[in-house]
Amino acid sequence: MTTPSRMRALVKTAPGAGAELQVVPVPRPGPGEVLVKVAVASICGTDVHIYEWNAWAAGRMRTPIVFGHEFAGHVVALGTGASGVEVGDYVSAESHVICGRCYQCRTGQSHICRSCSILGVDRQGCFADYVVVPAANVWHNPPELAPEVASIQEPFGNAVDTVFADGVPGKSFLVLGCGPIGLMAVALLRASGATPIIAADLSDYRLAMAMNLGADHVIDAKSADTVSRTLELTGGEGVDAVLEMSGARTAITQALKAARNGGRVTMLGLPAGPVALDLAEDFVFKGLTLQGITGRHIFETWYTAKAFLASGRVDLRPVITHSYPIEVFREAFELAITGKCGKIVLTL
Amino acid sequence: MTTPSRMRALVKTAPGAGAELQVVPVPRPGPGEVLVKVAVASICGTDVHIYEWNAWAAGRMRTPIVFGHEFAGHVVALGTGASGVEVGDYVSAESHVICGRCYQCRTGQSHICRSCSILGVDRQGCFADYVVVPAANVWHNPPELAPEVASIQEPFGNAVDTVFADGVPGKSFLVLGCGPIGLMAVALLRASGATPIIAADLSDYRLAMAMNLGADHVIDAKSADTVSRTLELTGGEGVDAVLEMSGARTAITQALKAARNGGRVTMLGLPAGPVALDLAEDFVFKGLTLQGITGRHIFETWYTAKAFLASGRVDLRPVITHSYPIEVFREAFELAITGKCGKIVLTL
Amino acid sequence: MTTPSRMRALVKTAPGAGAELQVVPVPRPGPGEVLVKVAVASICGTDVHIYEWNAWAAGRMRTPIVFGHEFAGHVVALGTGASGVEVGDYVSAESHVICGRCYQCRTGQSHICRSCSILGVDRQGCFADYVVVPAANVWHNPPELAPEVASIQEPFGNAVDTVFADGVPGKSFLVLGCGPIGLMAVALLRASGATPIIAADLSDYRLAMAMNLGADHVIDAKSADTVSRTLELTGGEGVDAVLEMSGARTAITQALKAARNGGRVTMLGLPAGPVALDLAEDFVFKGLTLQGITGRHIFETWYTAKAFLASGRVDLRPVITHSYPIEVFREAFELAITGKCGKIVLTL
Amino acid sequence: MTTPSRMRALVKTAPGAGAELQVVPVPRPGPGEVLVKVAVASICGTDVHIYEWNAWAAGRMRTPIVFGHEFAGHVVALGTGASGVEVGDYVSAESHVICGRCYQCRTGQSHICRSCSILGVDRQGCFADYVVVPAANVWHNPPELAPEVASIQEPFGNAVDTVFADGVPGKSFLVLGCGPIGLMAVALLRASGATPIIAADLSDYRLAMAMNLGADHVIDAKSADTVSRTLELTGGEGVDAVLEMSGARTAITQALKAARNGGRVTMLGLPAGPVALDLAEDFVFKGLTLQGITGRHIFETWYTAKAFLASGRVDLRPVITHSYPIEVFREAFELAITGKCGKIVLTL
Repeated sequence: MTTPSRMRALVKTAPGAGAELQVVPVPRPGPGEVLVKVAVASICGTDVHIYEWNAWAAGRMRTPIVFGHEFAGHVVALGTGASGVEVGDYVSAESHVICGRCYQCRTGQSHICRSCSILGVDRQGCFADYVVVPAANVWHNPPELAPEVASIQEPFGNAVDTVFADGVPGKSFLVLGCGPIGLMAVALLRASGATPIIAADLSDYRLAMAMNLGADHVIDAKSADTVSRTLELTGGEGVDAVLEMSGARTAITQALKAARNGGRVTMLGLPAGPVALDLAEDFVFKGLTLQGITGRHIFETWYTAKAFLASGRVDLRPVITHSYPIEVFREAFELAITGKCGKIVLTL
Repeated sequence: MTTPSRMRALVKTAPGAGAELQVVPVPRPGPGEVLVKVAVASICGTDVHIYEWNAWAAGRMRTPIVFGHEFAGHVVALGTGASGVEVGDYVSAESHVICGRCYQCRTGQSHICRSCSILGVDRQGCFADYVVVPAANVWHNPPELAPEVASIQEPFGNAVDTVFADGVPGKSFLVLGCGPIGLMAVALLRASGATPIIAADLSDYRLAMAMNLGADHVIDAKSADTVSRTLELTGGEGVDAVLEMSGARTAITQALKAARNGGRVTMLGLPAGPVALDLAEDFVFKGLTLQGITGRHIFETWYTAKAFLASGRVDLRPVITHSYPIEVFREAFELAITGKCGKIVLTL
Repeated sequence: MTTPSRMRALVKTAPGAGAELQVVPVPRPGPGEVLVKVAVASICGTDVHIYEWNAWAAGRMRTPIVFGHEFAGHVVALGTGASGVEVGDYVSAESHVICGRCYQCRTGQSHICRSCSILGVDRQGCFADYVVVPAANVWHNPPELAPEVASIQEPFGNAVDTVFADGVPGKSFLVLGCGPIGLMAVALLRASGATPIIAADLSDYRLAMAMNLGADHVIDAKSADTVSRTLELTGGEGVDAVLEMSGARTAITQALKAARNGGRVTMLGLPAGPVALDLAEDFVFKGLTLQGITGRHIFETWYTAKAFLASGRVDLRPVITHSYPIEVFREAFELAITGKCGKIVLTL
Repeated sequence: MTTPSRMRALVKTAPGAGAELQVVPVPRPGPGEVLVKVAVASICGTDVHIYEWNAWAAGRMRTPIVFGHEFAGHVVALGTGASGVEVGDYVSAESHVICGRCYQCRTGQSHICRSCSILGVDRQGCFADYVVVPAANVWHNPPELAPEVASIQEPFGNAVDTVFADGVPGKSFLVLGCGPIGLMAVALLRASGATPIIAADLSDYRLAMAMNLGADHVIDAKSADTVSRTLELTGGEGVDAVLEMSGARTAITQALKAARNGGRVTMLGLPAGPVALDLAEDFVFKGLTLQGITGRHIFETWYTAKAFLASGRVDLRPVITHSYPIEVFREAFELAITGKCGKIVLTL
């Protein structure tokens, strides 16, 4: 089968809310790059922000651009010098295209590269029939891994980095925010010997999912006091670790208060605007550690994700609640905005 | 119920093999000590060495002595100044009585105290109706924990220290030696997201137990080449970590060869006599880390053990295969020597 | 020489600013405690807060109380059961009296004990001819260590914990705040291979001291932009680590901005009131780690302090700028409030 | 100046001792490679092994080959696609050419790449007027760094990895073997707050150099018992860390015995043949950690080396005792074999 010259692509045509499904030229892989035929692409919270065009998107992105950065598919063409990958390979990709020359890149911290370019944010993305990625970003999927699961390995990597930012087995956890990555974190924690696992959210739908994925206790943040309930569940001690995955400003204050003396608070959520914290009382005197997580260690997190998925220790299929053909992308995004869903995938 | 003046005790009366069940005075707790009525005591490999009077026992111990150091029971009397514990408390105890003054004791490494005295080795032990332990060594058991499981928390702590000497979730493991602590390690690894878990032993009985407790693969070391089989099971890479729990000299060489470049080999087993290693090829060039584990971090390991047991994440009951009244101790020790058993407990 | 029945003591007699030098009964050591004849006691920032009676002091302390918690002296009497120490020993003491039973105490984190009682804050302190401390808190000083230096080992321990909260040799540092502990941190960094060492403060006096103690660059925060100057001095990268020792709210924002991607910010300073942080931009996206430091690891920090002081690798004498007899304590505290000083000691 | 077509090169022409200075074609840089005009190249212990053709060399290398892997020089030509480097750049290079695709390479452990090719061992080396290296291996030297010092950054990286394999400031160290890397380690330890620093060797010449570079104590292993002397110097405790840099089999046994309970032994030296160790007594019961060091973390160690050298915190010039024009290479190698020297450099 030859690659056509034109393809469907979900394009952010101009600043503002929404997106358009257009027919555009199939991109060509440059030196060291590969062209992938996308089978499944999944919707990230970031994609929702781009769709809605929030302040972050408006400040960072240039239109027109094809967005989307999580996918699985097959390699159909190689640019010159692309090595370690062949036409026909079943792949996903790390979405952060790194510079390879900065201090971070040369010292094992390329996920916080100072000149990083992100798929579907800074360069053409994968909500399209075809996407171009550097060969160095390619990850080979095991053949038996379903494409929709392969597609969500990228955000699963965020969960991996957040969960394993410090010790897990035998430790107590509070997960704040049960969106898809929060749910993946719950599943990972359960598979990794954390106990107890407490999950909090405002949505009954998501709390039920959290229970199903392995939480020992859930806290309905609409009606219960998250901090006092957490203290109660831990004999007054507080948890060893809080994973902040909601981005809510109140949640961050709760995180500091719910952690035990000497505990850790690991933040993946991105609060909008400044957050006021009582650092003396809630942080310094408690001897806490606060960790910011962005992207995912390349490729440590991918290997870890593979270990959990290939062995069946973690099953991410329950996290994926909806699948839509890309043509009905509006329905998919509208659902994502409501939050009455787990992970949503688009098929191509 | 008052405490009687005399009790049954399993006494090592003189150098040489064997032991005698005698009636001896009930000991009195000194300042800062407590007296415990023992309900269950369990047999450690060290106790078997003492029973058989191997070279280590002959070099270290003085007779007569009551041996045994793993138990569960209830506090019946307090010495002066014993604090943090009450008569009637359901307890077990850390078996290492530390000096509290050396560098190790004052810097969180009291498990390798330079002047440590061990219950049932250097001071009177728990194979008896009553045992005296320092209040500082007491561990409070949850009321719902069965005494035979409470008794084996102490060796479980060895498994905890060995398993968690470095990262576990998503990592591949080879466990060399499936005695009781090796089996506990397999259960812990399974509950903590290790994958794959490979276990090797010479005994079919114990390999079957290892499978039952969560090993993904077992290697019958009588017929298979442990190293080549491990490499085969890990795509030629070797495992992230080897837990050496057999004390066999050949196993240590295998451990170095079966670990991946950059992996770790964690040794709890105690080889008798010198072991010849090709350190250049098998250790330095591979960039390995080799860790010696002795005792267990006090009380980190106890808290971790409690977290796994109280939550049901690990169920140690299948590890305990036999229970004997102390009167038939000979039968118990003879069985322990054969190795056709898991953990053996004595009831009092 | 017999111990008299009455002694001089600097007493906080009632809520409000100031203190009184009174003649009070010499305290008696209880079980497990020792009585020390104080030779030198030093003034901590906390003592200044107590003297001035700030919001923290008003909320925490009960009067009357002898304050002061840093000292050196000789043991003159032992309570019953006090072990590991003899009359005549030349000692200082850890100021945090721990419970010994909580999770933190039993897992090597006793510096963040949940039921900690602090000398001179929660129990009678050392601005007096005699002070009672638990034998377990005693630290033996080398005979050749000058008493005024021995007295400031306690705050030096705070510097040790802050500086060594992560790697130092070959790393770049920004120290925010050059009070006595900031100055000790500069000296420690210089002795430990940090490079470059940048120090910022509002006081020319203290910046000159920082240069003298080993800073490579100083930033006068009155006139220069601390963040842009730090970026300039590190080729635009930011520093590997920021030590926040000022407690100023603006300094914390600067700390996050001056750290490199993946760097650490270690906070010992205690900001008064909530601090508003742009956590998304300045913390999460940068992949920072933020550490709260309180007290000092018992006794790791004391051993480390001893290593640096006994070897002469660090000389703390230049940090001590003033010495007063306790009778002129008002002069000492008034000077401390001005900040035109390093460490001030009181002699008894 | 144009690049000539032929050059001088020190060639291992055939298996067996010795080498020949020949005139050979200047190599051409392939895709992604650069050609460097060598100014200074330095002699490593490995080069001496190659010169003498020991068992390792005979087993690993194929002749003819230009050997040498440590150098400094200027880039004179670029292969196609070589990026991040320009003609005229003043450079050195990481000598391990990595595969970039294995687990180790993709997880920050490329120094233990499973398919690594080493300059001057597996591919043409730098004892020549010109050498070809991958652009990805290039390290840019600061212009003010003397070429002979720039040349020895590579082995300095071994010292960096060995020294900083765990904590250094305030820790006690024993360095076994004062060859050039051992001497660099002593200098690094001194600059990084280690105390005390004890160095042992058989050569008076090298012990004098160790004292000069910052050792607090030296042990003449010809006449003194290294273990008992180390215990004596540490109050009977043993050292926090032993750096084994001699490769002597007896030294490894001493290393285990000289380390304190809970200490570390970090091995860079390569013992020839099996080493018999009493692992139960000297390793497991002591709770030691044993670390194998090979190569150096790419490029963490280079950044650390730069930090120490550019700041002047470490001055490596005293380590370089001899410089020879490449024509008199025989004299240089004969001297290296005697050990009556520090680092020897060859000029081109």
